[in-house]
Parts: sequence; C-alpha cells; structure tokens
Amino acid sequence: MRIGLFTSGGDAPGMNACVRAVVRTAGAYNCEVVGICRGYRGLLEENFFTDLDRREIMSLRSVSGITKLGGTMLHTSRCPEMHTEEGLRKAAAILEKHGIDCLIPIGGDGTFRGAEELCDHWGGKVVGCPGTIDNDLIGTDFTIGFKTAVETAVSAVDKIRDTAESHERMFLIEVMGRHSGYIGLFTAIAAGAEIVAIPETLEGIDEIVAQLHEIKDRGKKSVMMVVSEGDDLGDAHKIDEALKKAGNPFPTRVVKLGHLQRGGSPTADDRILGSYLGHAAVLGLLEGRTQVMAGRVDGRLVYTPFTETYDRHKPVPREMIDLLKHLAR
Amino acid sequence: MRIGLFTSGGDAPGMNACVRAVVRTAGAYNCEVVGICRGYRGLLEENFFTDLDRREIMSLRSVSGITKLGGTMLHTSRCPEMHTEEGLRKAAAILEKHGIDCLIPIGGDGTFRGAEELCDHWGGKVVGCPGTIDNDLIGTDFTIGFKTAVETAVSAVDKIRDTAESHERMFLIEVMGRHSGYIGLFTAIAAGAEIVAIPETLEGIDEIVAQLHEIKDRGKKSVMMVVSEGDDLGDAHKIDEALKKAGNPFPTRVVKLGHLQRGGSPTADDRILGSYLGHAAVLGLLEGRTQVMAGRVDGRLVYTPFTETYDRHKPVPREMIDLLKHLAR
Amino acid sequence: MRIGLFTSGGDAPGMNACVRAVVRTAGAYNCEVVGICRGYRGLLEENFFTDLDRREIMSLRSVSGITKLGGTMLHTSRCPEMHTEEGLRKAAAILEKHGIDCLIPIGGDGTFRGAEELCDHWGGKVVGCPGTIDNDLIGTDFTIGFKTAVETAVSAVDKIRDTAESHERMFLIEVMGRHSGYIGLFTAIAAGAEIVAIPETLEGIDEIVAQLHEIKDRGKKSVMMVVSEGDDLGDAHKIDEALKKAGNPFPTRVVKLGHLQRGGSPTADDRILGSYLGHAAVLGLLEGRTQVMAGRVDGRLVYTPFTETYDRHKPVPREMIDLLKHLAR
Amino acid sequence: MRIGLFTSGGDAPGMNACVRAVVRTAGAYNCEVVGICRGYRGLLEENFFTDLDRREIMSLRSVSGITKLGGTMLHTSRCPEMHTEEGLRKAAAILEKHGIDCLIPIGGDGTFRGAEELCDHWGGKVVGCPGTIDNDLIGTDFTIGFKTAVETAVSAVDKIRDTAESHERMFLIEVMGRHSGYIGLFTAIAAGAEIVAIPETLEGIDEIVAQLHEIKDRGKKSVMMVVSEGDDLGDAHKIDEALKKAGNPFPTRVVKLGHLQRGGSPTADDRILGSYLGHAAVLGLLEGRTQVMAGRVDGRLVYTPFTETYDRHKPVPREMIDLLKHLAR
Repeated sequence: MRIGLFTSGGDAPGMNACVRAVVRTAGAYNCEVVGICRGYRGLLEENFFTDLDRREIMSLRSVSGITKLGGTMLHTSRCPEMHTEEGLRKAAAILEKHGIDCLIPIGGDGTFRGAEELCDHWGGKVVGCPGTIDNDLIGTDFTIGFKTAVETAVSAVDKIRDTAESHERMFLIEVMGRHSGYIGLFTAIAAGAEIVAIPETLEGIDEIVAQLHEIKDRGKKSVMMVVSEGDDLGDAHKIDEALKKAGNPFPTRVVKLGHLQRGGSPTADDRILGSYLGHAAVLGLLEGRTQVMAGRVDGRLVYTPFTETYDRHKPVPREMIDLLKHLAR
Repeated sequence: MRIGLFTSGGDAPGMNACVRAVVRTAGAYNCEVVGICRGYRGLLEENFFTDLDRREIMSLRSVSGITKLGGTMLHTSRCPEMHTEEGLRKAAAILEKHGIDCLIPIGGDGTFRGAEELCDHWGGKVVGCPGTIDNDLIGTDFTIGFKTAVETAVSAVDKIRDTAESHERMFLIEVMGRHSGYIGLFTAIAAGAEIVAIPETLEGIDEIVAQLHEIKDRGKKSVMMVVSEGDDLGDAHKIDEALKKAGNPFPTRVVKLGHLQRGGSPTADDRILGSYLGHAAVLGLLEGRTQVMAGRVDGRLVYTPFTETYDRHKPVPREMIDLLKHLAR
Repeated sequence: MRIGLFTSGGDAPGMNACVRAVVRTAGAYNCEVVGICRGYRGLLEENFFTDLDRREIMSLRSVSGITKLGGTMLHTSRCPEMHTEEGLRKAAAILEKHGIDCLIPIGGDGTFRGAEELCDHWGGKVVGCPGTIDNDLIGTDFTIGFKTAVETAVSAVDKIRDTAESHERMFLIEVMGRHSGYIGLFTAIAAGAEIVAIPETLEGIDEIVAQLHEIKDRGKKSVMMVVSEGDDLGDAHKIDEALKKAGNPFPTRVVKLGHLQRGGSPTADDRILGSYLGHAAVLGLLEGRTQVMAGRVDGRLVYTPFTETYDRHKPVPREMIDLLKHLAR
Repeated sequence: MRIGLFTSGGDAPGMNACVRAVVRTAGAYNCEVVGICRGYRGLLEENFFTDLDRREIMSLRSVSGITKLGGTMLHTSRCPEMHTEEGLRKAAAILEKHGIDCLIPIGGDGTFRGAEELCDHWGGKVVGCPGTIDNDLIGTDFTIGFKTAVETAVSAVDKIRDTAESHERMFLIEVMGRHSGYIGLFTAIAAGAEIVAIPETLEGIDEIVAQLHEIKDRGKKSVMMVVSEGDDLGDAHKIDEALKKAGNPFPTRVVKLGHLQRGGSPTADDRILGSYLGHAAVLGLLEGRTQVMAGRVDGRLVYTPFTETYDRHKPVPREMIDLLKHLAR
C-alpha cells in the first residue's frame, strides 16, 4: 500500500500530530507514505515532500518532534481547479503515475467534497481526517483544531477582561465560525462571558439590551460578549451599533480575534485527537474502507461516509446552550 | 433547599468553575448556597464563606470572574477527624444547626468516602462532583482538573525537549498519578514522548533499554521518557539508575514536575466540565438523588453511587496504550 | 504623610505591582495610603478603596498576591471634568477634606498633565509613575506595561506565522502605539518580522513592494509585516490596499491585535519595574520632591519634571532600526 | 572573512536569535559563516552545519523563523578534551584547514576560557556572546537566556501559589543559579515571594523562621519562598528540614524547577538581546577586535576582554535586595 497524504483547506492545530500518526502507523504496517505538499494544488503540481536525504517516501524521522507545532508541515492551499473535470482527471493521472493507491486527506467539508469527486475518476481508496477549527462536521464529536481554537479564544477573553474590569466597559469579542456557533458557545461558557451571540441562538437585539440592563442593575460594571463571525445579527461592529441604538447601558469596545485562532501550539487534546484519527485512517484503509472520514463519537472510533459528514448542519448541543443560560448572569 | 458546598482533598483546576456553576444554578432555582471553607475541617470549625457584605449565603456576584482562577476559592484541606465517630456526629450536628439539608462536595475518592460515612449520621442529601487531577474515579470519563494537569505536563515536556535536543540527551520526566497512569499516558501521547512508564504497563527495565538501543540505532539523539510517580519500577531517579545499570546508551537527566501540575489557570475543557458538573449536581439534588457523583460518560450526564466511583481501579484505555506503541518510535 | 494613590488613563500590565510597592513601601515608612478608585473621576466622586474591614487606609494585606494580575485593582477611567477649573478646585477640596497631602498617580502623559494642573489649586506633593503600554514618556527607558504589550504582540505574531507558513501568505499585523513605533519596532525585531511600518520610518509603499519582490525572489513564501496603528501610511487595511495596488506579489491577510495587548498577566520585567518605580515614588515624596515622574534610565533611578516627560516626542532608538534592517531579510 | 559560529555550555533561550543575527549581519557585510555543531566537541569532530542543499556556508534562509525556538539549532555539549594541549592544537589545525579566520562562540565563562586558551594556538580573532541563563558574566547587564529563565520561574511560582493558597501551605521553590542569586532574586521580586534565599543574602535559618512567625501573626496563610540551588544554607530540601527544626509555623512542600528553566520559547527581551549581541559580535570582528565579549551595559554596546568577564563574581544589585525587603511582607 502506498498512501498519499495531504492537508487541505484552512490550517488547524493538530494537523501535524495527525500527519505524524499516519506516517508512524503506516510504518508499523509496512506501508509507504508520500507527502503531498499544499493540498490539491500540490497534487496537481506534483509537489511532493522530500526529506533531507531527498527521498520521496516519508521516513519515521521526518515527522519527529512535530506534534507541538501549529500549522501544517505539509502546507495547505485552496485549489479551484480541483472542481473542474480537467483538474480531477489530471489528479487521477498523477496518482496513478506515482503508484499511489490510497489517499488520506486532512481537512474540512471542501476537502472531502473534492475527494468524493476525485473518486469518480480514480480507483484508489480514501479515508479522511477531520481537520478544521470550526467543528462543523458530522461524524466526530470534535474536529482536529477546534479545542485549540477555543483555548486561544478563551485566553484572549481572559486578557481582555482585565481591561474591561479596569475600565468598567463592555467588550464584544468576535471569534471564528462562519456557519457554526461551536467556538463561540464553548468560549463563552469557559470564559464566563455574560452574553453570547451565535448563529444557533435567536435572541434579538432588544432581548440582549434587556439582559444588559438587568446585569447593570445587579451592580456589575464590566461585560464580556462573545460573537460568532457568522451570527445572523451581523458582525461584531454591526451588533455593537445595533445595541447602542437600542439603549445599551455600557460603553463598548470591539475586538476581532481573526487568524490568531488558527495558529499556535496545539492543546494536548488536539494532539491526541490528531494522533488517534491519523492512526485510525491508516487502519481504515488496511480494512479496505473508502470514501469515509475517521471520527471519534462518544469515545469510540466511527467511520462516516464523506457525504454524510457535510450534508447536514451540525447543531451545537442544546444542553450547552441551557448551561450557558444558567451560568451567564 | 439550602446547599452546603465545599472542596476537599488536593486542589484541582476547574474547581472554581464548578463552585460558580453550583451557586448560579442554585440561584436560578431559588436555592441557597452556604460555602464551607477548607473542606471537612472548615465544616467542623463552622468556617463559612462570607462575602463583602458579610452575608453567609453565596450571592451570584460572589463567584464572578472566578472560572479562570486555579486552585479553589473555598480552600481545601485534609481532615483525619472526619474519619472518627465523634467527628461525623459533630459535622451532622453543625449541618442541622445551620439548616443545611443538602451537600455538594467537590473532590476525589477520600472526599466521597467521607460523605458516605457522614450520611450514616445525617439525614440530608449529597451529590458530589469529581475534582481531582488524577482521573481515577469510575463514573466519569474525565475528572475536573485532569486535562489541565496534562496540558501543564505537556508544556513542560515541550520545553525540556528544547534542551534535550540541544544537548543530545535523554530526560526522564516524572508526572503525578500515584495509582493511575492517566496523566502519564496522555502526556506521553500528546508530547510525542518516546518512552512511557506507567503503573498499567508491564515493560521491564530490559525491554526499555532494548527500545532505547533501537532508537539510538535509528539515529535519534534525544529521548523523552514520561514516568508516573506511582510506577512499579520506582520513581524517576530509581528508574534512571536501573536503566543506567542495564546499559542505557543515552546520558540522562531527571525532572520531577511535582506541584506545578496542580495549579494554573484551568483549560477551557476543565472550566466547561466543572461548569457542567456543578450544574448537574444541583439538578441531581432537585431530583431527589443522594450519595451519587455527577459525571460525564460518552457525552452524557450520569449519576454513579459514591461507592462505585472508588471501588475498582479505573483502567487507562487499552486503545491509548496501543496508540502510543504505534507512535513512539 | 498621607498618600493618595490612583491609576489613570489606559490600563497597563504591571500597574498592580506598582500599587503594591507603594502600599508596602509606605507601610515601611509609617505613611498611610488612600486608594482612589477610577482615577480622577473617582477622586471627584470620593470613590475610595476600602478593604474587607471597611477601612479606608490600604493595609499590607490588601495588596497581597496582586503582582500577577493584569489591569489595575484600583480601576481607571478618562475624566474630561478634570480639565475644567471647576473640576480642579473640587479635586483640591476633596484632597484637603481627606487630609491627603501627597499623590502618586500611575499613568501616561494625560495623567501627568492633570496632576500638573491640579498643583495650581492644591498645595500637596505629587510624584508619578509611568504606567502606559506605549513607552512614549521621556525620563524612563521603559514604561510599566510596555514589555508585556510587546510580549503579547510577539506571541500573536508567532501564532499567526504558523498559518502564514502553512498557507504561504503575507500577514499584516497591526499593533498599538498611535504616536510611537516602540511596540511595533520591538515586536518586529523579536518576532523576526520581515517588514515593519512605524511612524518613525519613512519607507514608502513602493520601497516596501520592492523589498517584497526581493523576498519572493529569494524563495521565501510567507511574510510577516508589523504595522503600528499610528503609521503615517494609514492603518493596516489601508496599507494592505496600497501594497496591493503597487504590485505586492504575496496574497495577504490583516489582523488587528487591539485591546488584546492591554491585558494579561504582566511579564517579570513589568512586575519588577512597577515594583521598583512604586517604591521610588514613595522615596521621592519622602525626600520632598514634587511634580516629577520616577523613571529608570540606564539602570539608574531618575526623577524627571512632569512637563519634560511629555513635552517632546520620544524617538525610537536609531540602533534598533538599523538592527532590524540587518536582520529582516 | 570566514566566521566559525557555535554555541557551547548549557543551552539558553535566545541563542537561536543570536545565531540568526550573526548569519544575517555577516551576509550584509559579505562574510561567510560556517556553523559548528555541538560546540568544541563538534569542532574537534569537524561536525559542521549543512543546509538542505548540503552547503557548508550558512545561508540567510537557513536561519529563517528560528527566533521563536528554544534551545540552540547548532546544538551544544561539554568537551573536556578542549582543556588539553592536544585538543587545542587539533582545534587550531581544523580551523586553519577550513579557512576559518574568526570565531563567534555563544556561551558562558567555560566557553570563553576555552576560546582564550585556543588563541594561544591559533591566530584568528574571537568575539563572544554571553549565552547563559545564570547572568553571571561581567560586561553585560543581562546574559542571553536570563530573562526567559526568570519568566519561566515566575510563571511556575504563580501556578504553585494557587495550590499554596488553596491548602494554606508554604512552598519552597528551588530555581537555578549555582553561584549566582540573580534568577532567585528577580523571580522573588516579580512573583511577590515572601522569602528568598540566595547566595548573596546572609540571613540564617533563625531569622527566616522569625520572619515566618511574623507573617503568620499578620494573618497570612500561605507563603512562597524562592531558593537558589546554590544557596549556602543548602538546597531546598535541606533548608526545609532546617526550618522545620527551628520551628517553622507553616506546613511545607518543596518544588525543584530544574531543567524546565532552560527551555521554552525565548521572551521578546532575550530575542532582542540575542539579535543585538549577535549583530554586535560581527561588527566587533569587522573592527578588528578579538578576545572580547559583546555585551550591553546601561543601554550601550560594550566589548569586554574575556578574562574580565569571568574573573570576578558578578554581584546582584544591592538596590534589588533592598527593594525585596520592602515588598516581601
């Protein structure tokens, strides 16, 4: 077995642990791993990873000491060409030319859609790993990178709270998650934020302002509000404006965390999850599986067909929304 | 309902989030919370928490902004007197005197044993929360504090690896967990350690030395070994000696992390788990439960009788040991 | 001697260490310290700090364990009323009423201007401490808070670099410092940024684009550019646009760090500097000094008249600009 | 000019920034840099750094992105052979063979002694950089690595304080610095420790116990004591025993930080200092200097003859000891 391994889409902390686990597990089962640089684009350009000895097969040593690194050693990119008939045929031809009969893509829904389409033109097997900070894939409780993104956001809220308390202000902190409130919700609970605005909650501006008045009446002088970039109410600046118009009793400031959340050394959890799923992807291929994503659900390994992973919206857990409501006062 | 709330045993990061969740959830259901300082000892000494306004009932405000703090705002201690008939009677009398009809103890097996014994002398209800870094309680996948302890240990291994690589040495890093290899195993996987010695693994000194020779032969120049303080082979210094005698090919150094692992701001996960279980403990009391611990198993809330939580040894997951074996090369 | 102590203007990490040093040093010389909350506004509102025992004099214990906290325990605010004749008279009257004959304000140029004006209406003595992240005061090599702000910015650049390298992009990272390039310059050197745009450097858009082409030609695939919010070229988004128009060969993203830089636990340096200058302020008052700021220049304690601290622009060190030019390639 | 560059002795955070600055500055002046791996041992074994293209000259790219890394990319070791006549002759011969006419060693007093001896057998020029966490070299206010070691120690004390407060205990925390109290003293001030024991202070056990009783009488329930490993009173465990015998009123625990202090990403200050001094070393060679160390004193660049850097003990600043006495109560 000769496995093509790549990372694609937005980078996510823990991808490197996943790469290492694929290489090491493959080594234990005498499979070869070819590292494809820069995702689908690198595949189309035959841009393969070579180690110090210029060999194309990834050695056990080539992945030494990388679990602690953020980003992805294989680099990543977006590649529109892969959605064309021509691009797909070219990719299939290159895989065949290099004798690659299996693929392990690490990425999000776009990555898996691409893999799905590729399989119409190529006879190899594909098992994917969920690498995205958004945690928006069905078939795994958590995606690789999500926990680190939350940790980074929480530590930012902790820091900003120092200033909020010193100045007796309200801060709106915008976190990532265009279609999913996971990062926002988990950050808000962990950081003890008073207010959260995520795509999944329906509170309007007026309800929030009412809540802010209550908070003010209870004597609280600073407020932290976590806003998902994708909230229906608009982005943090727009929400800030709307709250002001509706009578927000607090002076406010806005902070957008942006790309800060993508990087940094992965948390222990993301390194373990990345290792676990990289290992599982190789096992899945050895068992003959294809067009599935390796995931972890309720502490158990689960393989889910690609199409099911991105078909439906993955809802944030109802009980976590309830928990936040009880605590944020 | 008037709830007595205390933390007991070793402090664990996330205990404060749990305290906050109890106070806030109780407030939402119109229950009163009395904070008992310094665990059972504080109970026997009627040492109750009072806020700035000298009131004995914990207000919503009294727990503002504490999720990010390590340690426990209610303090903790060991209390041998609670294992005597006299101590138990006295504790029961004090609870009655103050009209406390429910207890929420946050701690480990010693804490729950004490609560169990107390119930022989007192008619109130008790629902506990698992607060210990060791993760050695049945009835919850993870205890409050475990994830932070792992994170701290992993970040220490990351730092020490810089020196190990620069000097081309082997380091033995001793982590906590007298009877349980959880911290050691999770740290080793996340930090990408080459060797681990935990109570649950049976490798002898000779096997380890053989492994070290293999590693050396593959050209690796530095090695990280994680050792649980409770390993059968003895503590890190003893293991180091034994490895030396058996022909360890690497020069070594030993670092014992010790109490470093207990403190520090909790990870997002421990804050969320603490919040979730503190909330669940109040709900459990409202439903009339008693002598149980609130836990989270496979993503679901579970109440487990105290006696079952500490009766058996909680084994580290077999699959994680296997994973480590595939990766640590 | 009865010292009024307050923090004013933007909060800066290390202010708490400074507060502690004032209280502890004053205690050693049998002086009383009255904590004035929320800067000049708190003074006008007679909003004084009281400890658990409701006493107005700050006890040694009231400042225990605060060196590690970000923000300021005395809170801070802006107060336009203090620039009116009426406000100044009122402030003077309140100080007299409470028997406060000395003041230690911790803040920036605005704070010292206010103190200067106050002295026209009040006969007490004032020694200030430089507390601002901007490092824009003459009379001290570094202000309290500057080093922490740089550390925070550097750690953000480190994180974002993971993503920049993974995606082979250029990032523009906007740091604070409206009139001063200190944070930008120190961050750029420490983080190994390729390009910097600070108020003090005169490079135009075309020079920067030429540099970017050189970098690209040398085979580099990711670039970090640090931008001071006050750069003449405009803010980060505007510079990004201008670079694009002038032919920037790299795809770009912008991150504005904003208020993240104000908070967080102070670095050791800021805690030591805060302690040193708080101590020095009390000694200065004991020696009869007034209308001066305590500072540290070339390792020595220096008192500088308030007016000199903000009169001139404090230039960034020429040698640091040269250093950056040699390294950033 | 062809410069041989190496790191030697204990690794120190910031060495990589120094290496980068040497390579980049040399490049700007058209000098070649040969990286010698593993200090003097690597020199004797002709173990030179080669980049991906197998070239022996360090390219500008070979040091990209290394400022943030702990340890040293050139590795380090101890080499007793270099103190023999034979070793020195061999080293000189190898330098001549490779056309190396200048050396930049980064290390501590042992490194500079070696360089001094080497110059008796070799006609090249040597300018050194102070790379050691101990800050025990005359001729520079701070050595590269010291500030990071203090930061690491302070953050450890912060964490342990959580536990100390929760359990109402005293902790003795042993930091590095066999002959120098710098790390101990700076850590104690920054962390707000109540007691410090460093080689330079003369307090006996009885004075310390008296102080502890005072602290206890003032109602304080937890105490942090920082101990330098080289204190005359003995190491932390011995001091703990002695305090116990002399009537220490607090229950105690001991934590030895050990090698934790050596590693980790360097602080901004150490990266800047490393950059500054690496740059200065090249300039020094260009000006024809030799057998000197580049240092920074009172904000100015200073070259000090090697022999003066290690001849005398570098005393901790008296004013910092006084400061600690005023604050630690």
